[in-house]
Amino acid sequence: MKRIAVFTSGGDAPGMNACIRAVVRGAVYHGLEVFGIRRGYNGMINGDIFQMTSHSVSNIVQRGGTILKSARSKEFMTPEGRQKAYGQLQKFGIEGLVAIGGNGTFTGATLFFDEFGIPTVGAPGTIDNDLYGTDYTIGFDTAVNTALEAIDKIRDTADSHDRIFLIEVMGRDSGYIAIQSGIAGGAELVMVPEVLTPISEVVNILQQGFTRSKSSSILVVAEGEEEGSAKEVAEKISKMMVGQDLDMRVTTLGHIQRGGIPTAYDRILASRLGLGALEGLMNGEKNVMAGVINNELVYTPFRDTIRLPKPINEDLLRMVKILSV
Amino acid sequence: MKRIAVFTSGGDAPGMNACIRAVVRGAVYHGLEVFGIRRGYNGMINGDIFQMTSHSVSNIVQRGGTILKSARSKEFMTPEGRQKAYGQLQKFGIEGLVAIGGNGTFTGATLFFDEFGIPTVGAPGTIDNDLYGTDYTIGFDTAVNTALEAIDKIRDTADSHDRIFLIEVMGRDSGYIAIQSGIAGGAELVMVPEVLTPISEVVNILQQGFTRSKSSSILVVAEGEEEGSAKEVAEKISKMMVGQDLDMRVTTLGHIQRGGIPTAYDRILASRLGLGALEGLMNGEKNVMAGVINNELVYTPFRDTIRLPKPINEDLLRMVKILSV
Amino acid sequence: MKRIAVFTSGGDAPGMNACIRAVVRGAVYHGLEVFGIRRGYNGMINGDIFQMTSHSVSNIVQRGGTILKSARSKEFMTPEGRQKAYGQLQKFGIEGLVAIGGNGTFTGATLFFDEFGIPTVGAPGTIDNDLYGTDYTIGFDTAVNTALEAIDKIRDTADSHDRIFLIEVMGRDSGYIAIQSGIAGGAELVMVPEVLTPISEVVNILQQGFTRSKSSSILVVAEGEEEGSAKEVAEKISKMMVGQDLDMRVTTLGHIQRGGIPTAYDRILASRLGLGALEGLMNGEKNVMAGVINNELVYTPFRDTIRLPKPINEDLLRMVKILSV
Amino acid sequence: MKRIAVFTSGGDAPGMNACIRAVVRGAVYHGLEVFGIRRGYNGMINGDIFQMTSHSVSNIVQRGGTILKSARSKEFMTPEGRQKAYGQLQKFGIEGLVAIGGNGTFTGATLFFDEFGIPTVGAPGTIDNDLYGTDYTIGFDTAVNTALEAIDKIRDTADSHDRIFLIEVMGRDSGYIAIQSGIAGGAELVMVPEVLTPISEVVNILQQGFTRSKSSSILVVAEGEEEGSAKEVAEKISKMMVGQDLDMRVTTLGHIQRGGIPTAYDRILASRLGLGALEGLMNGEKNVMAGVINNELVYTPFRDTIRLPKPINEDLLRMVKILSV
Repeated sequence: MKRIAVFTSGGDAPGMNACIRAVVRGAVYHGLEVFGIRRGYNGMINGDIFQMTSHSVSNIVQRGGTILKSARSKEFMTPEGRQKAYGQLQKFGIEGLVAIGGNGTFTGATLFFDEFGIPTVGAPGTIDNDLYGTDYTIGFDTAVNTALEAIDKIRDTADSHDRIFLIEVMGRDSGYIAIQSGIAGGAELVMVPEVLTPISEVVNILQQGFTRSKSSSILVVAEGEEEGSAKEVAEKISKMMVGQDLDMRVTTLGHIQRGGIPTAYDRILASRLGLGALEGLMNGEKNVMAGVINNELVYTPFRDTIRLPKPINEDLLRMVKILSV
Repeated sequence: MKRIAVFTSGGDAPGMNACIRAVVRGAVYHGLEVFGIRRGYNGMINGDIFQMTSHSVSNIVQRGGTILKSARSKEFMTPEGRQKAYGQLQKFGIEGLVAIGGNGTFTGATLFFDEFGIPTVGAPGTIDNDLYGTDYTIGFDTAVNTALEAIDKIRDTADSHDRIFLIEVMGRDSGYIAIQSGIAGGAELVMVPEVLTPISEVVNILQQGFTRSKSSSILVVAEGEEEGSAKEVAEKISKMMVGQDLDMRVTTLGHIQRGGIPTAYDRILASRLGLGALEGLMNGEKNVMAGVINNELVYTPFRDTIRLPKPINEDLLRMVKILSV
Repeated sequence: MKRIAVFTSGGDAPGMNACIRAVVRGAVYHGLEVFGIRRGYNGMINGDIFQMTSHSVSNIVQRGGTILKSARSKEFMTPEGRQKAYGQLQKFGIEGLVAIGGNGTFTGATLFFDEFGIPTVGAPGTIDNDLYGTDYTIGFDTAVNTALEAIDKIRDTADSHDRIFLIEVMGRDSGYIAIQSGIAGGAELVMVPEVLTPISEVVNILQQGFTRSKSSSILVVAEGEEEGSAKEVAEKISKMMVGQDLDMRVTTLGHIQRGGIPTAYDRILASRLGLGALEGLMNGEKNVMAGVINNELVYTPFRDTIRLPKPINEDLLRMVKILSV
Repeated sequence: MKRIAVFTSGGDAPGMNACIRAVVRGAVYHGLEVFGIRRGYNGMINGDIFQMTSHSVSNIVQRGGTILKSARSKEFMTPEGRQKAYGQLQKFGIEGLVAIGGNGTFTGATLFFDEFGIPTVGAPGTIDNDLYGTDYTIGFDTAVNTALEAIDKIRDTADSHDRIFLIEVMGRDSGYIAIQSGIAGGAELVMVPEVLTPISEVVNILQQGFTRSKSSSILVVAEGEEEGSAKEVAEKISKMMVGQDLDMRVTTLGHIQRGGIPTAYDRILASRLGLGALEGLMNGEKNVMAGVINNELVYTPFRDTIRLPKPINEDLLRMVKILSV
């Protein structure tokens, strides 16, 4: 293999730039030529491809977002789109790919390999930490710390006014951000998609708080929570506690969780995974995602990252309960 | 005057603790006895009053929120409520008050003086910077920097995906947070309550951006904007640009703007105003708010802070236009 | 066991408060009485001991330092000191201890158990991450991120002036902070106590940088580096590169690395370890340290944490080399 | 005037990029052609000059350092150097300059105008806030907040160990950073070059602290302090308090104060001053520095900014004394 390319795809995540840098610098170190593809599969189809050098990735390790930009591509989901993409890669002589993204990205790569034989090794880039095959994904630690800073700020105002706050964090199918930011933020309760929390239990916890004269309470709600969004949960609570003097507010953190300067953890993880994906590709790996499990680099087939669910750590949910006593 | 008390009232703001500290330490320095009242006028009515010393305010200069807690009091709006409050102050022998808050607080203090002769000097504590009689209010600089950090994070993801973002910041009657965070954040447009921005102009600016191939745009919208909330503005834009391929998102920053570690500016301003309010009270001032205008300490009658509007700096709005070229 | 006590000892580390909170809340949850001891073994000797409740640890999860204060105790190293300490614990009816600290603390606890039979379970609180028996120690992740923020800031000015910066970070016997902050900060070289880096190699790397027209370079030096402090390393470099136009500066980060708001990682780790230490003590563990290895809670005898070295991850050192290409 | 150029010179300061952006965008808005000069006067001499557009300054408002790089130029201090620089400007057809820097920069610009008639308008870019003609300089607010964050972190560890810390901040001739970060950080004492603080007074304050059982003390020392560096001050204190059990540490913050993401205040000030300098130049100003005094844009002749001292606000020094009671 002489020429490879790297791209980012799907939702952006802090640390993607550190990952790109590791792929590029690793390629230079090992004597490969390396190209960047802009806007994921769309750029592959349109030939938005350019050669990268060590200098191309100077001074980006600390930047949020992705210098290669990202997009979701409908066209690549069609055989015609993939045919065009293959034509472009041929033109540039690119023999292998490093894809930084999630399961949507890996599904596309699998189809592409089956049709055209171009191998891809993936690196897990998503703030949600919902990918099987790695303990943590690139961007997760930063997103948790961003959510945590917001919780810390909101606790200041919650305490000053003796209020209950419901804070909605990202995680459509996964409660990881909610649990970690909730424990770290000293939340009284964390509601996640993986575990059913009936509203009656929420009301119980709030009542107990009143009894112990807690002056304020923080509830962290993952956006994919079964009982609904934080706003809907708040409305259900209000209905069940009608007649009581509740001062309750709802805040949805939203897109700030996607951006920001990556933490040390995310930069190091992204660097390991970028280098690991590149070296895997050089060693003949294909259709696999590089991950770090128990501090070891491992490769997991795309079919497993796509198929297998990532279980939540129930010990952490137990901790929320004990620590909010 | 031998005994004074300090309290915080209305919405909390970062820097209130630094202000409390300056009042307490200043009182100790000048040989006065100083009391704290919890939860604003409610605590005055209920006698939630305690003596403070130098140690009471150790290690709080850097904390958000207010250690004296804050509340809005309906009871103090009644003659009976004020009568009770007066009784409590009599019990503790308190002869003068420093009130950290906004116009609601100052209105109460004016009534209270007219009825019972207890003088109050105010310090402007509100993130909105909507008080006449001071260049800046306590908490404003921190709120602007909090909004700015959020804008910086969102720009990462906006750039990565070539998106338009509408970001709603606090400021029901005032565009100060919107303008300052918008200029500092490099926003393409800022919409404030003080100036009418027709949706057609917004659409124009977005169109021009497309023409100059700007890949992403940030619009900052104050919550009191005449065209509606950021969500409503986004809907109006969508209607006028129907048929165009708009990737537009809305984020409401919400309560994170009220909390957080106060900036250096806010801690210094709060310290000056706390000390200034205290020394004003000692020198016979009453029914006035301490403010800093052109770096000088000034006292403005409550009737003016309540009555007079605070004009927005139109030069700054002009700057937004030029800088987003 | 009915009554236990918790204390912090040795150098303070961010996350110690989260750990104290977990011990206290865990004890309350399990129906134990829990006491706090101030200033480590000194407070134990002097009887600076007080009962703690759930409320004692409200609103501290986000604070740096330790509310129980810390100290190194010479007196506890004497049999007389330990005898006094035992007397105090008897007086309060304390049957077991949770000690948050490092090997000095654990050595004292072992002696104390041998003499008086009071069992201790430890939690590893030190920013240096130099303890065998856990992947990470409480405070390490925060210290790395603090060092990283400093490196990011220095890179701004290094780039603007085309300068070489030597940045000295903490770690007397351990290069963990240096390696992690160095990789995350995009350093050109990291010098650690565990691996010999001859000055000639440093000079080589700087020369190669010039050849590739790198305009600035960052070298991260652990304080325990064999070639000396960052200042001494800089002097040695200057001597070997005499005649070349070197613009080189040295910065020692110092005590800022010990303080600060703990990261999410540190708060969660501290909570797990605090709860783990408490529950270990309740289950009859003694003379062991709670740690997290491969995401599992484990107990390691003090004699091993004291005796066994913690190896550095050489893969990470290899990464520095590749990524600075 | 049709063509102008902008450059940064002297020590870099956070906000310089926001200032460059305002000059460039302002020029585009007003229909001028605008060039960037790299590395200050050195780049002018060497012809390191390139045309800039709106896009050249996209996404830099939030970056520390300066994209135009900075340097001190010995060659420009010679007539030959300036002759070469003039030749280069002629070649590019540049008729006026915006210089972002300090008094060294402005001295050069004055000589250059006298010899070659090329007008310069300056913008004050230096963290030290030591320039007459403006209330604040670009970078000062960020530097104060950086120093403050460090003080906050150090207070955590000072409190945990009951220690005295001497913290040295930047400011060779000016105590502005020391005073502002000291007040905001709740320091017990601030030592600045402008005011003599005998060591005996420092010792007095520490003794008083002991008497009032203050458990820790923070002293902020400006690097230009007459009694010497923080290290020397600490040695003098130790000598005078010999025999007492002092646990005293010294930390020098160093270059971290030059870098970092600019605060909202600095970005807005930098934008105003950049635009003000440009528009001044267009309106025929020359040999003047744009400044903001009492929130108004003003132009001050270079000869005054160079000659006149900037007085320190003694009210703030008085505040330190009162607030540390």
